This record gives sequence, C-alpha cells and structure tokens, in this order.
Amino acid sequence: MSSLPEKQHPKEAFGWAARDTSGHLSPFKFSRRATGEKDVAFKVLYCGICHSDLHFIKNDWGNSIYPLVPGHEIVGEVTEVGSKVEKFKVGERVGVGCMVGSCRSCDNCANNLENYCPQMILTYAGNYYDGSITYGGYSSTMVADEHFIVRIPDNLPLDTTAPLLCAGITVYSALRYYGLDRPGSHVGVVGLGGLGHLAVKFAKAMGAKVTVISTSPNKKKEAIDNLGADSFLISREQDQMQAAMGTMDGILDTVSALHLLPPLIGLLKSHSNLIVVGIPDKPLELPVLPLVLGRKAVAASCVGGMKETQEMINFAAKHDIKSEIEVIPVYYVNTAMERLAKADVKYRFVIDIGNTLKDIS
Amino acid sequence: MSSLPEKQHPKEAFGWAARDTSGHLSPFKFSRRATGEKDVAFKVLYCGICHSDLHFIKNDWGNSIYPLVPGHEIVGEVTEVGSKVEKFKVGERVGVGCMVGSCRSCDNCANNLENYCPQMILTYAGNYYDGSITYGGYSSTMVADEHFIVRIPDNLPLDTTAPLLCAGITVYSALRYYGLDRPGSHVGVVGLGGLGHLAVKFAKAMGAKVTVISTSPNKKKEAIDNLGADSFLISREQDQMQAAMGTMDGILDTVSALHLLPPLIGLLKSHSNLIVVGIPDKPLELPVLPLVLGRKAVAASCVGGMKETQEMINFAAKHDIKSEIEVIPVYYVNTAMERLAKADVKYRFVIDIGNTLKDIS
Repeated sequence: MSSLPEKQHPKEAFGWAARDTSGHLSPFKFSRRATGEKDVAFKVLYCGICHSDLHFIKNDWGNSIYPLVPGHEIVGEVTEVGSKVEKFKVGERVGVGCMVGSCRSCDNCANNLENYCPQMILTYAGNYYDGSITYGGYSSTMVADEHFIVRIPDNLPLDTTAPLLCAGITVYSALRYYGLDRPGSHVGVVGLGGLGHLAVKFAKAMGAKVTVISTSPNKKKEAIDNLGADSFLISREQDQMQAAMGTMDGILDTVSALHLLPPLIGLLKSHSNLIVVGIPDKPLELPVLPLVLGRKAVAASCVGGMKETQEMINFAAKHDIKSEIEVIPVYYVNTAMERLAKADVKYRFVIDIGNTLKDIS
Repeated sequence: MSSLPEKQHPKEAFGWAARDTSGHLSPFKFSRRATGEKDVAFKVLYCGICHSDLHFIKNDWGNSIYPLVPGHEIVGEVTEVGSKVEKFKVGERVGVGCMVGSCRSCDNCANNLENYCPQMILTYAGNYYDGSITYGGYSSTMVADEHFIVRIPDNLPLDTTAPLLCAGITVYSALRYYGLDRPGSHVGVVGLGGLGHLAVKFAKAMGAKVTVISTSPNKKKEAIDNLGADSFLISREQDQMQAAMGTMDGILDTVSALHLLPPLIGLLKSHSNLIVVGIPDKPLELPVLPLVLGRKAVAASCVGGMKETQEMINFAAKHDIKSEIEVIPVYYVNTAMERLAKADVKYRFVIDIGNTLKDIS
C-alpha cells in the first residue's frame, strides 16, 4: 500500500486539509478505499463545521494526524453499496457522524453505545482497520460500513440536518440519558452556540421547560422568540440567578471556555446533574461542598450510539427540528474557522460541498 | 428565654465546648429543653469524633456558633419520652446522627430524604425551631424529636455503633443510591479513615468486590487482612494504576485533602461515578475530557435520611459491622483532635461519655 494519500486506495477523492498546527486548510488530493461488501459510498453534499474541527486542525488535543481532512457532520447521496449491504440503496440520502468503526464486541458495542467503545474509530484522524488514516467530510466522497451510516428522512433538508449528526446527537443523548426528556422537567441550557441552540429545540420538543443561561443579554430575544426557550437568565445578574436557585432538574453546559461551576450547581434541584458537553482545554474548578449538600453531580456525555443517532434523526423529522445554519462555500472555510473561534456564527457553519468543492486535478 | 446557655432551658446539662476559632474544647454548662410530647430524651453514653467536628470547632466552614458543643455520632439510653412518642420507651438503646429537625413537608422530606431538606437542622450549631442553638453529643444528655432518633439493636455494641450514625450512613447511602450494593460490582474506596474503613466493610457485606486505593503502601495488610478488602492499589504506582484502568463500577472518594481526580476517573468503567463524600476546603481540579469520553460523573452524597439510617443500623446488626475505634476519655478530646488532624487514629475516636464526663457544677 503506497503511503501517498492519493495512491493509497483505488478511489480518487479530493477535499480540504490542514497540513500542520497552523490549522490552515487548503485543497488536498487523496483516495478512498474500494466499497467493501458491507460499505456504503456516497457523494458528500454538505458538511457541518463542528467546534472540535477547530481543535483538531490546530492539534489542540494532541491527537491530530496531518494531512487532516476535518468534518464529521456529513450528509450526501449514496453512489454505491457493497454486496452485503442490507439497509441502503444507491440514490438514498444518508449521513455519517463522529465515528466510522468500533470493536462491535465489547459491552458498550453490545449495548448500542459504540461511541464509548475503547476502540471506536473517529471519522477523521482515526486509525482504520486497514491501517490507513481516516479522512472526514470536507471532501468529495465518503465511505463507511453501513452500521455507521444513518438514513435522512425525506422531509429533512440536508443542509440543516448535517449538524444534527454531532451537535444534535450530543444534546439529544444527554437529555435522554439523564432523564430530562419529559414534560414537566425544567432544563437549563448554558451557552447558545451550535450545541446550545439545538439543546433548546430538542428539549422543547421533548416537552421540557427550557431556561437559557447566558452571559449575553442580547441573546434573550433570539432565545425566546426564535428558538422557543421559556425563559432566559443572565448569569452575571445575581438577583436573577438567586431567584432561580434550586429550580432546575438538569443543566446542559455546552460552554468550552473556562467558566465557573458553582452558580450553575446552585441552580440545580437536589439529586440532579450539571451535564458538561463542551470541553474546556483546562480543568475547571470544582467545589465539593455544594455537590455533597444536594447530592448533585457534574456529569458528562459524548455524542451517541448509532441506534440512538438514527432515533434522533427520526425524532427531528417528526418534530421538524432544524439546525440554524450559515451555508458557506468551501473556499470560505478558513474565514469561517476564524469566525467560529470568536463565536461569530448563528449557529452552525455548513459547507456546501456539492456545489462549491472543485476537483483540483 | 434567658440568653445564658445554662438558663435557657429547664434541664441542666453539661459537656465540652469550643469557645472560639482556636477550637480548644473545655467543660461547659448549658441546658436542654423539657421533653416535648414527641421528644425522646436520653443519657449520652458514647459519642464519635467526626472529622467535621474538627472543622466546626475551628469554624473552617464559616457557619460555627460559639460556644459550640460538637458531636453527631451519639448513642445512649432513653431516660424520658414525651406523651405522644410511639416508637421508643425508657431504657431502650438509641442514637442521634447529624440532624435533629427538618421541614417535614418538602419533596425531600416526603421522600425520606430529610438530609437534603433546605431547612434541615444540624445536631449542633443549628438553629432549632424554638430559636435556640443546638448542642451536640459531647455532653451528658440529648433530646430530639423521635423522628430523628434511631434504635440500636441489642447485638450491636454502643461504642462501635456510634460512628455508624455519620460515617456509616454516609458510605451506606452512597453505595445504595449509586447502585454499587450488589454482588459482582467492583467498588473502589479512596482513603482509609473513618469513612473509608466502613465503606470497605459495608461494600463487602453487600457482596461487592472492594479495592482500596491509597497513597500508603503500609495500609495494604490492614486493608486486606483486617478489613476484608479484595485488593489494594497504591495510587502513586503507575503500573498498578494503569493495569486497573476502566475496571471499577464506582469509587467512593473519602479524602478531604486536596488530591488529583484524573487517576481516579481513569479507574472507572464508562457510565459510572466517582462519588465524593470527603469535603476538601478548596476546589478540586476537574478535567472535562475524561468525563465526556466515558460518560462518567463526579457525584456526591451527604449522610442519609432517617428511614435509611435505621435500615443501615439494622443492616450492620445483621452483618455484624462495627467501626474500628479507639475509645477515649472526654478529657483527652483536645489531644484526639490534634491526632485526628494528622490522621493518627485507627479509625475513629469514640468518647466514653458515660464513664468519663464529670459534672462540673
């Protein structure tokens, strides 16, 4: 097997890749494997830009492999299926999220929790079974075992659905696992970005009362009028926060910047969870006494398994849940990354791969 | 009502109290209320010294009220019962733990979780319904509403049972609530002090496999031979810790000194809890990524409700669970506090109140 990315596999592909820790993305020729008997190959039409793409292109987490083609919110149309593929046909609308493989035999895999399998293979910068490095969705084509492919129902637009494959499942799975998915529960959502705005929509669709907690008073109108939140707390306003103490059944904390936990822990009822789904680079400060006095926990959640991801997409189709997006051409991607670093996007960039990615050969 | 402690109530009492943040304890005359219609009064025979007594006498948590009579692991013999007391009779063996009152009407109280009631009244340094300050068990007598009294079965020695009323219920309730109370579960216990040694005994009696995690290699023999732990990890030994990664269903962290959480989080299986029951004075550093990747949580627990406390005592009677104790005379209490601050006790000091507390009048 050649070590040159464009010769390694039989199928030509092209995309945009980061070459080093500068994170600058530029056109890149590589190759995809031949469609195996359980594989589904598809033409990529849209790919969302996740905040973790920004971390990966700069190797912030120390596990990046260059050249690195980011993208794990990938949707498109099936072009080829392997001989033993049972669930998908050519022409169907499909998606791939954060992972393309797992051991399929551990306890987590047996319980449809491939996302927590110790051998889970990331959609990009992962080591695939055949020894090759995985490339993500800022690219012309995609291929994956059908187990890691989800079907996109006809009534869901592809562009607004792409972000559901990471941001959407992240908040959906957390709401379900921690029992916040019911009428009468009061859910706090901290941070109104890619994850936060979807948390509001999913929690509302599940019947919960939703309070957005934010440092920015100017997001109040948007949160309530456009996203459907029930109320809005400005985290720097002591009076508001004090009045809301002990009222929430759970909080989804989507903030990846360093921030204070005690005010959030104070908002929780006893026996409930502050669920972190954002990933700050540095440790947060955890005071123990307020956890102990209320039997509260700082809990966490990481995307979702494949069965639950399909369930989430079907739920979105039923409840007409769309990500709020700004569609961009692929050549805008470096500017988009700069804007994302400043949280200057409402609420997710989605790259129009189908119409703007040009073959550079 | 006189503001002098010895005149405030009709019943004379005496004990040992701290007068200021030096924490020095000395003989103290005060008074107890008349036995109300739902009250049980008892002669104190033994009282355990809890690590939180040490914090309270020095006002480490900022909520101490002087003069302060510590002690919330109190056992003795009933001397008087009110006209409407239903469960207890004169001469019976009883105990009082960390609380002597709660609102009796909130959700937590309705669910036998008086320990999480926002109006829960501490056994000492609490504000009782009548406006007086509560005094603990380093004293000649005790009185409490029968709801907050537990019965000590005949086969349990009073001295070794006293520490169960705080240390015991703390670990018992945590093991039960977090689902570690079953054969086949693998429980880690961090720190082998008053709480830790009882955590080993209760978890073993519940059928769990127990691994003690400690910085001190010299505790290994004791943990395994005397307390019944199945295995022992030295937290500074990288190889041992690495080999145990991902093997535990839950960890009870009883350490109240600052310590690192990541090695402990690493020992947990996915979807499980690091349960803190020790209370460090300063915030701990919480790295988010390892929580997210395994859907793990840093959880907590605080003693237990009255129903569960009685259940715990009955469980201890059935399984012959005793605290390991060093019985001391009351005049040794200041030295005991100094030794406790250095963790120089196996594993709990218990004051022999009945035989050593002298009336100073």
